[in-house]
Amino acid sequence: MIIVMEPKATAEQINIVKNSLEKKGFKIILNEGDVMTVIAAIGDKRLVDPASIASFDGVREVKLIQEPYKLASREGKEEDTVIEFPNGVKIGGLERPVMMVGPCSVEKDFEGLLRVAEAAKEMGCQFLRGGAFKPRTSPYDFQGLEGKALEYLAKAREMTGLLIVTEVMDTADVPLVEDYADIVQIGARNMQNFKLLKAVGKCPKPVLLKRGAAATIREFLLAAEHIMCNGNEKVILCERGVKGFDSTFTRNTLDIAAIPIIKKYSHLPVIADPSHGTGRRYLVEPMSKAALVAGANGLMIEVHHDPEHASSDGAQSLSIPLFKETQRRLNKLIGRIDYDNRQLKTQIK
Amino acid sequence: MIIVMEPKATAEQINIVKNSLEKKGFKIILNEGDVMTVIAAIGDKRLVDPASIASFDGVREVKLIQEPYKLASREGKEEDTVIEFPNGVKIGGLERPVMMVGPCSVEKDFEGLLRVAEAAKEMGCQFLRGGAFKPRTSPYDFQGLEGKALEYLAKAREMTGLLIVTEVMDTADVPLVEDYADIVQIGARNMQNFKLLKAVGKCPKPVLLKRGAAATIREFLLAAEHIMCNGNEKVILCERGVKGFDSTFTRNTLDIAAIPIIKKYSHLPVIADPSHGTGRRYLVEPMSKAALVAGANGLMIEVHHDPEHASSDGAQSLSIPLFKETQRRLNKLIGRIDYDNRQLKTQIK
Amino acid sequence: MIIVMEPKATAEQINIVKNSLEKKGFKIILNEGDVMTVIAAIGDKRLVDPASIASFDGVREVKLIQEPYKLASREGKEEDTVIEFPNGVKIGGLERPVMMVGPCSVEKDFEGLLRVAEAAKEMGCQFLRGGAFKPRTSPYDFQGLEGKALEYLAKAREMTGLLIVTEVMDTADVPLVEDYADIVQIGARNMQNFKLLKAVGKCPKPVLLKRGAAATIREFLLAAEHIMCNGNEKVILCERGVKGFDSTFTRNTLDIAAIPIIKKYSHLPVIADPSHGTGRRYLVEPMSKAALVAGANGLMIEVHHDPEHASSDGAQSLSIPLFKETQRRLNKLIGRIDYDNRQLKTQIK
Amino acid sequence: MIIVMEPKATAEQINIVKNSLEKKGFKIILNEGDVMTVIAAIGDKRLVDPASIASFDGVREVKLIQEPYKLASREGKEEDTVIEFPNGVKIGGLERPVMMVGPCSVEKDFEGLLRVAEAAKEMGCQFLRGGAFKPRTSPYDFQGLEGKALEYLAKAREMTGLLIVTEVMDTADVPLVEDYADIVQIGARNMQNFKLLKAVGKCPKPVLLKRGAAATIREFLLAAEHIMCNGNEKVILCERGVKGFDSTFTRNTLDIAAIPIIKKYSHLPVIADPSHGTGRRYLVEPMSKAALVAGANGLMIEVHHDPEHASSDGAQSLSIPLFKETQRRLNKLIGRIDYDNRQLKTQIK
Repeated sequence: MIIVMEPKATAEQINIVKNSLEKKGFKIILNEGDVMTVIAAIGDKRLVDPASIASFDGVREVKLIQEPYKLASREGKEEDTVIEFPNGVKIGGLERPVMMVGPCSVEKDFEGLLRVAEAAKEMGCQFLRGGAFKPRTSPYDFQGLEGKALEYLAKAREMTGLLIVTEVMDTADVPLVEDYADIVQIGARNMQNFKLLKAVGKCPKPVLLKRGAAATIREFLLAAEHIMCNGNEKVILCERGVKGFDSTFTRNTLDIAAIPIIKKYSHLPVIADPSHGTGRRYLVEPMSKAALVAGANGLMIEVHHDPEHASSDGAQSLSIPLFKETQRRLNKLIGRIDYDNRQLKTQIK
Repeated sequence: MIIVMEPKATAEQINIVKNSLEKKGFKIILNEGDVMTVIAAIGDKRLVDPASIASFDGVREVKLIQEPYKLASREGKEEDTVIEFPNGVKIGGLERPVMMVGPCSVEKDFEGLLRVAEAAKEMGCQFLRGGAFKPRTSPYDFQGLEGKALEYLAKAREMTGLLIVTEVMDTADVPLVEDYADIVQIGARNMQNFKLLKAVGKCPKPVLLKRGAAATIREFLLAAEHIMCNGNEKVILCERGVKGFDSTFTRNTLDIAAIPIIKKYSHLPVIADPSHGTGRRYLVEPMSKAALVAGANGLMIEVHHDPEHASSDGAQSLSIPLFKETQRRLNKLIGRIDYDNRQLKTQIK
Repeated sequence: MIIVMEPKATAEQINIVKNSLEKKGFKIILNEGDVMTVIAAIGDKRLVDPASIASFDGVREVKLIQEPYKLASREGKEEDTVIEFPNGVKIGGLERPVMMVGPCSVEKDFEGLLRVAEAAKEMGCQFLRGGAFKPRTSPYDFQGLEGKALEYLAKAREMTGLLIVTEVMDTADVPLVEDYADIVQIGARNMQNFKLLKAVGKCPKPVLLKRGAAATIREFLLAAEHIMCNGNEKVILCERGVKGFDSTFTRNTLDIAAIPIIKKYSHLPVIADPSHGTGRRYLVEPMSKAALVAGANGLMIEVHHDPEHASSDGAQSLSIPLFKETQRRLNKLIGRIDYDNRQLKTQIK
Repeated sequence: MIIVMEPKATAEQINIVKNSLEKKGFKIILNEGDVMTVIAAIGDKRLVDPASIASFDGVREVKLIQEPYKLASREGKEEDTVIEFPNGVKIGGLERPVMMVGPCSVEKDFEGLLRVAEAAKEMGCQFLRGGAFKPRTSPYDFQGLEGKALEYLAKAREMTGLLIVTEVMDTADVPLVEDYADIVQIGARNMQNFKLLKAVGKCPKPVLLKRGAAATIREFLLAAEHIMCNGNEKVILCERGVKGFDSTFTRNTLDIAAIPIIKKYSHLPVIADPSHGTGRRYLVEPMSKAALVAGANGLMIEVHHDPEHASSDGAQSLSIPLFKETQRRLNKLIGRIDYDNRQLKTQIK
């Protein structure tokens, strides 16, 4: 931690900061410049809240040197986390990128869901996604089928062998959702719902954590840390677009660079959601490709058997024929990436 | 709702959109230009999800004309909502702006809390704020005293007569918090925790809803709508800063213009939180004044008896002496505003 | 300057950075932690481009401690800069806040301009603003009357005694504009047009520098530094709104906090432009008041004799009657601020 | 154009708007809803400034239907613009993506520049980039060698056959720069320097226009329109990152989605600059690949013979060996894209 003092800070103010940190076990180095004094405090950041140091008189600014997440950080664990499912599917590291596809929300028409699942299976996808509980900006929009939807997903899993990804929105629903899901999803709007993070941190299933629309990468990794420090280290991060100043052509700005950045600073798997990340059907394919070549361990894409009558997010959903056509091209690219990754694995060995 | 078709949309595509909307009870007017056709659909937006219209082939864009919130809108209720508490304190409309002050989180030291409460009382403030459950970006930071904190707040209320504002973070805690609080607060990070909004929508106490750091004003009012359509119309909105591109000098950008904008489009009371909105002690006073003259119905300010040892947010907390000095100047401004407002009330009558 | 090394940086990499900085005259202190080494380099930042240090192998991040602007900084010059005009009008410090009003662009109808100028004079304003050269987002919109407009402004000055503020867009026009203007304005879109900053830096007239829509406060002050280091220290800064993620209700987010922040870190006068900062007529008054109580040394407001037929920015312009009504209330507030400031001046003496 | 009236607008206010637009040749359709009236005005937007309509009393909002750019729009010209250089190199459409590489700024050491140029040539690149005039945020940083730099670039062109891209910052320098350059570059900070856009609009050389850090896609295309409507239709657009709320890990957010969006709405070639777009060396390769698979017609990358002693932007520059290694992998990807594009061209024929 670096503490920059105000140019006018008195010797006494500097001393108070110094002593307070020394008491907490930090090693202190004073750097006295012509204009201002800078204090370097070396030690475990987690022993002290930087904001409390910033509140001392005469302190201009506190700068963190070491990232405040520990379990999520590559500094603590160098090798990539690879999450393996009972059926052998793996996510992370140099494993073949996975595909999670399905409707935004599970609707009453089970046949429609099944048709999507069958198309996904046919195209080699590994996961079926679908919302049972739906966070909706407007209270007048469709809110999800809840328990019924979870049963439908389980039935589709039984019939196709796909694994199930579905969102949980409230601590009270965690036991129910973790019973049905293979991956429990935390939506972007709940990325800092800390009670919910704690609850899924105690759950045995892997968690897919979506980045909040205004979350910095540091806040995103700290949200993962909330889950991990409660015992669940199987966290998959999902970049799904951040708020930008131009909403004429897209809902969000899909931050592709977040993928290689997170891979540098964390060992956790990262996937991308180009459907929510753009909100436009025609952008799903180019942004899927961009995410894959930038290093994504998988993609989450919305597919609906009848987008024009979808209960939510129809505008960004692919119809089944369009999905198949797109997936064919994505599979070609995934094949190449997988081939390159396998070469890399051999070299590393 | 205005539907802009693609320049190349076929007559058949236009017809499908037209028929689908007519079936849902909309009156349709076709505007055929040289380049593209624009469809005006007049009727109740809530009968149809605009995203589902956007998903039809040939549709370029769907533009909403009428705001999608109804209960929160001034179109539905012209006169200002004024919330009155059992002790006669009122928030909203042309009532004297109120002050909510106190520490970010309630800590073990009850005496400290009491000293803040007594100073608040002395300076004419109406509310004591303090977190029992604390949302913290890092899992290693102080998370709040929970039940113990609620008891402390209740005790401070008893001793000073101040009303209590405190945050609830999870549906499971709503019964406990509503038992103790005079106002139940929803934090910025939970602004779109829809299960929680629903739960406080069923609670008898007024709700203070903080704006999410990346929430548009429309999303903010829709979050209020989630509470209101569950039966609780006593919602106080709180502007507390949005994410900006410059975090060198402040934590957030306090969006002062949001105050008069919300007052134009909604009848609900609006307050501002300059402490979280800036994250810097020296900005609390000028931004408090800015919010008040822009029309805020109140302010929420962090005050701590010992900011240098606060468990959270010390850097933006005022010490008791600094608070008193600041509040003295704010009271002068509040007095002038109250005088002007009373003149206005007389004129209106 | 603080240089954070990568956890894996080698002793040799650390040495190369250290030696390179020592050669440039910096005093070096090594802070070796368990995880990473942090180098404090104490000396004149301007001797070295931090980006070049960031390019050494093994460097994770370079953090600036001292702000890179010098002439604009309060560290170099503690007392407020007050700019005085030949007619005795002053801007800055504790002087009475000034008003700059007028149409967005000067149009063919001189009588209209004169009516605005006369109303401004009547209401006690000091400056007439009006664009001769107009930056327009679309090439098909009105681009300004150029030389003709400058003559009109000069004529209005002669008839009313108001001082003239007008924008220059190109180095080639600087001699012409500085001939007519009392204050030469640099528009937000040209805030980083460094050739133009250099040109007005050599001009004898005060410069009004508008903040770019995506400029950080640091970039804004560095743009002022470009002007000042070319010899012109009479720079007035103008906050006029930054790009935000919500453009439904406003064009920009007027960053009121920028006013007290700049006042803390710089001695230059700061004004605000609530017309461009919001783009909405009904927001001009509340945001004007907010800027004034937050410490602005003046306001720039658009007034048009016939907003419905303005060549540009009609939606945010006040008509003459609305301006008078608004200005009456603003004058009341300015009077109180001036009174308080004069008390302060007496106390300081 | 759609004009949404306030719910309380009077019949007379509606009539004034209607008549004013009819006089300007628009066809008017009134859509009267229960709550408010919506006016559709069909005709040529450029006959009227929407802001002037927005300034009428009773108008809530004016929404544009047709994009305000015409020459840059794909609606006006369906086939892709392909720019061909005298040596046969082509940019745009389904042509092989091109590479523009070189140092941020041209420095005194000609041998260094030549080594970069030779490496670029060896790796199959088509263009040498290098700044003669350098826009610098701080006035104390290196500002460019100007004329000398242009001579160096010309000499390097002569020796390697590479084409030259270099920036012009001021109208006064346009004749000089267009004499030397094969492509004249407009930097991001000058994207709305309209006098400069006009000047290069009259120049015979192709123009590379960089997106401003806070420019919407609409503003970006309108800036291109400024150049095109002055006679120069050879405009290459360059995405180089926009301002975001997280600057911990990158300088800017490279908006990859802008590439397919612009390709949908405009016929102009689009390239990406991952060096400025991220500011970090390790992100150049993944973001280059992302831009290419998303449809970019080329890339601009910073390469320096000695990044640790570069006069500017060393942290994001590749050294020559790192460049070669990266370019080898990019060439492999470019080869595949080119192969796919040629297949597509055959199918289209």
